[in-house]
Amino acid sequence: MEYNIQAIDSSVTEKLVHKINTKTKPLGALGKLEFIAQKIGEIQNTLTPQLNNPAIIVCAGDHGVTAEGISPFPQEVTFQMVMNFLSGGAAINVFTRQNNIKLLLADTGVNFTFEKHPDLIDLKIAKGTKNFSQEPAMTMEQCQKAIANGALLVEGLHKEGTNIIGFGEMGIGNTTAAAALLCAYTKCSGVEAAGAGTGLDSKGIKHKAQVIDKAIELHKGVTDPFEILATFGGFEIATIAGAMLKAAELKMTIMVDGFIITSALLAAYHLNKHVLDYCIFSHKSHEQGHQLMLNYLEADPILDIHMRLGEGTGSAVAYPIIQSAVCFLNEMSSFEDAGVSDRED
Amino acid sequence: MEYNIQAIDSSVTEKLVHKINTKTKPLGALGKLEFIAQKIGEIQNTLTPQLNNPAIIVCAGDHGVTAEGISPFPQEVTFQMVMNFLSGGAAINVFTRQNNIKLLLADTGVNFTFEKHPDLIDLKIAKGTKNFSQEPAMTMEQCQKAIANGALLVEGLHKEGTNIIGFGEMGIGNTTAAAALLCAYTKCSGVEAAGAGTGLDSKGIKHKAQVIDKAIELHKGVTDPFEILATFGGFEIATIAGAMLKAAELKMTIMVDGFIITSALLAAYHLNKHVLDYCIFSHKSHEQGHQLMLNYLEADPILDIHMRLGEGTGSAVAYPIIQSAVCFLNEMSSFEDAGVSDRED
Repeated sequence: MEYNIQAIDSSVTEKLVHKINTKTKPLGALGKLEFIAQKIGEIQNTLTPQLNNPAIIVCAGDHGVTAEGISPFPQEVTFQMVMNFLSGGAAINVFTRQNNIKLLLADTGVNFTFEKHPDLIDLKIAKGTKNFSQEPAMTMEQCQKAIANGALLVEGLHKEGTNIIGFGEMGIGNTTAAAALLCAYTKCSGVEAAGAGTGLDSKGIKHKAQVIDKAIELHKGVTDPFEILATFGGFEIATIAGAMLKAAELKMTIMVDGFIITSALLAAYHLNKHVLDYCIFSHKSHEQGHQLMLNYLEADPILDIHMRLGEGTGSAVAYPIIQSAVCFLNEMSSFEDAGVSDRED
Repeated sequence: MEYNIQAIDSSVTEKLVHKINTKTKPLGALGKLEFIAQKIGEIQNTLTPQLNNPAIIVCAGDHGVTAEGISPFPQEVTFQMVMNFLSGGAAINVFTRQNNIKLLLADTGVNFTFEKHPDLIDLKIAKGTKNFSQEPAMTMEQCQKAIANGALLVEGLHKEGTNIIGFGEMGIGNTTAAAALLCAYTKCSGVEAAGAGTGLDSKGIKHKAQVIDKAIELHKGVTDPFEILATFGGFEIATIAGAMLKAAELKMTIMVDGFIITSALLAAYHLNKHVLDYCIFSHKSHEQGHQLMLNYLEADPILDIHMRLGEGTGSAVAYPIIQSAVCFLNEMSSFEDAGVSDRED
């Protein structure tokens, strides 16, 4: 598959920096807001960027690797949480409502047969992946299909005018898949990558790391980025990777959430490095491996408030900060406009 | 003066923690949002806290110590920025508009004669403080008056239903005053407390530290907390200290901004330690001495995005995160409500 992503256009950068630097404030005094404003200006190639119809897509999928006892929660929690999303009671419902973000829900591969529901998009590939500690999680065809599904979702939103998008996930066992992807893409060890997930104790984390290390050893012949995603990923992760690649192609701003979503970005990044130009990192997850991913991608997220819930909640909570960046760029007066004296030196 | 602040009521704490812990999420997975939710629940002594009519009061004042050449910007910027606030073009205007926060502006002691303006509250004590490197910045009466003014402002807002309040400031030279207060209240040195302010270079910062150290030496007999505030503070700082004490007395949630506002809190805290029970720290300022203040107050702020603009902008930008905390507490379903299985262990 080809991903036709353009490197960011920096023709507007100098003017953006000038605009930011002549606002009525000490130079650099808005910190990260200034970098975000510049980035979104560059993505949209304008001095007056706008955030239109923000959306978060939550993808749910189950994981065969749960058979290895890597989560304290039973697999049925995946479908139960989908029901919770549909009835509006989950954290991501609360935060998207609060911040006027459109929420889309997709079943990409939950081990449950849902009745038709107007708010649940059926993108189910299979009832969960295979157990990657024994065989590849997906076939190449399944992985390809998931990527294509993600792209289609994003195209639909783009047609509705959305130009900033975030992603969330639900899938018992998916921190194990994400940690395995981290190991495979960045060559770190299971011990470095495996964290508490939904709440493992130290013994549980050790076991999870061993499961990952054995799987990495089993599949050590797999080196192609796409094949790595198919081998260790989840349907929700592959769908989101495809969605990110399409979002970048359509020059949308991508809000990157925590550990699972960043594992999808690792996959997308290895399929086309330019995807990174379109990313804003919402938060640093408290899931330990996330920092390794952020280091690898040289990312400096907005929030560090010890969240590790998933569902896209980091992006939903960080969204108003991104809005603040765009607002100051568009609305703050310059020293000249306001008749305020600049520095004396 | 007496400050009748009640220690926080922890009778609701156990129930609050239970409510937070049974939400459909891994234990602790909302990180700092959980602490904020608990704190506001405790302040309001309820399991269903509400944020009503949020407001930020920006106080402006001038500082005699600017005569020592401790700012790269001329003193006239204080009144020019007040004009900028009044025309809606400053950063604090942008962020309060964005987040539906009421903005109040008060002239507590600007070295300028403003024409009457419906949006500018006249609380002017004098046209700037005295140069504290030579004499006390204020008389005791002036300081007392400023504190009383702040209390009155907050009482007015409380009557209108405001139960969460932040503070901002404008005053060329006020990082020097705040740094001196930091030294006086916590016994650190000028070098530790002095930062770049609006943009001093290292030579400028060194000079600022010397000015502070000399002033601390000159006034070394001053040990009473109130007298420290009068000696080194500013009219805006004293007004805000008084406002904070009244806000705590009225059981309002106080959003604490950056370096200057935290110096006002240092003063308020030394006048009545219970004020701290009502505080949420919005952000860690990039002004270097702020971390010392936060350490002293054992505070762990929400944002760390390298802002150092003042005006209350850190609180205005952080406010949606505080809202998120209250929203999840009120709106998220519990495992039981949602029929989601809890951990298996």
